[in-house]
Amino acid sequence: MKLKSEALRQSILSATSELVITQGIDATSTVRVAKKLKISQSNIYSYYKSKEALLLAVFKQHQAQLIAALRSATPSSENPLEQIDGTVRGLLSFAIKQPMTIQIVLLFRQHPQMRQVLPTIYEDEYFANLFVQIQQYQDQHIIRPYNAEFLAEGVFSFVVNYLLFMASDNAPEPPITQNAVIDLVHGFLLEPNQ
Amino acid sequence: MKLKSEALRQSILSATSELVITQGIDATSTVRVAKKLKISQSNIYSYYKSKEALLLAVFKQHQAQLIAALRSATPSSENPLEQIDGTVRGLLSFAIKQPMTIQIVLLFRQHPQMRQVLPTIYEDEYFANLFVQIQQYQDQHIIRPYNAEFLAEGVFSFVVNYLLFMASDNAPEPPITQNAVIDLVHGFLLEPNQ
Repeated sequence: MKLKSEALRQSILSATSELVITQGIDATSTVRVAKKLKISQSNIYSYYKSKEALLLAVFKQHQAQLIAALRSATPSSENPLEQIDGTVRGLLSFAIKQPMTIQIVLLFRQHPQMRQVLPTIYEDEYFANLFVQIQQYQDQHIIRPYNAEFLAEGVFSFVVNYLLFMASDNAPEPPITQNAVIDLVHGFLLEPNQ
Repeated sequence: MKLKSEALRQSILSATSELVITQGIDATSTVRVAKKLKISQSNIYSYYKSKEALLLAVFKQHQAQLIAALRSATPSSENPLEQIDGTVRGLLSFAIKQPMTIQIVLLFRQHPQMRQVLPTIYEDEYFANLFVQIQQYQDQHIIRPYNAEFLAEGVFSFVVNYLLFMASDNAPEPPITQNAVIDLVHGFLLEPNQ
């Protein structure tokens, strides 16, 4: 039995992440990862028992980074608007610093087959708490009364859209500000007259 | 010189569309399209001079279908809200009928490299008119005063997110209605108190 190395495990995850970004999820294979790292395919299988297990590990690693960033960005304020805005600004600044992580989470969540095997977002403590919080704000008529996960995904896809738009040739001058994004998120998320 | 056939051109576009959906943009190649259709690669090059030209033709075909659907869905009403809602409902019902077209437009627009070479949305008469209309509604303080293309893309990505969400295992029961989507689009797009 081969001795496993945490450094090699991390190299496998990084190489797979790069392939997912440049080639797409479907074109990423253990053969290609092995080739990129100049190791044998069986060496990869001693860490991950299948292509699917490897892809899931990549997704989980990036999602964990995103959650850690959101967790530290969420203010401890009791004020609902401060909490919401702090979370959205945390998502924005994380996405600007680590666009690859955002793109990978998005690629997996928009992939018709992968989407079905991803861990349910409710399994994670951060999101479980987030949805409880959204529910409370809905009971207080602060957040609109629609499915909490759908609203959270709507905000996420809107922020990603903002980043893609600002990185494109069509990006307007002067740039759209983060305050404008917060204003639009408010319109989308909050009950009128908040 | 080979005689070109419109039927074969269409087969090339359809096969490429399927590869883009199942394999992703980067993994789609003229070699794979040729293999799928059991024709020679050079035969494809007599229709499209490069992989990029072929991919652009695929994008343009799907975008043209989307625009034709939006054009026929946009009511001739003079009422701003009726116009906006008619367009959003047109996008929703087209997307339900032709999810592949929506997915292809999205894949191209979210692809960091392809995004840069797509025809500017302003070149198309439908969108040129749409942006003039948005500008007018902004002057009348009906639509929020942010970049018109950014707002239009925000609505598009939100509708796509809705369809993906409703197709997933997390889709709530009872389903989120199209009226809820319209309500959220209003919150996002319209000035408060509309």
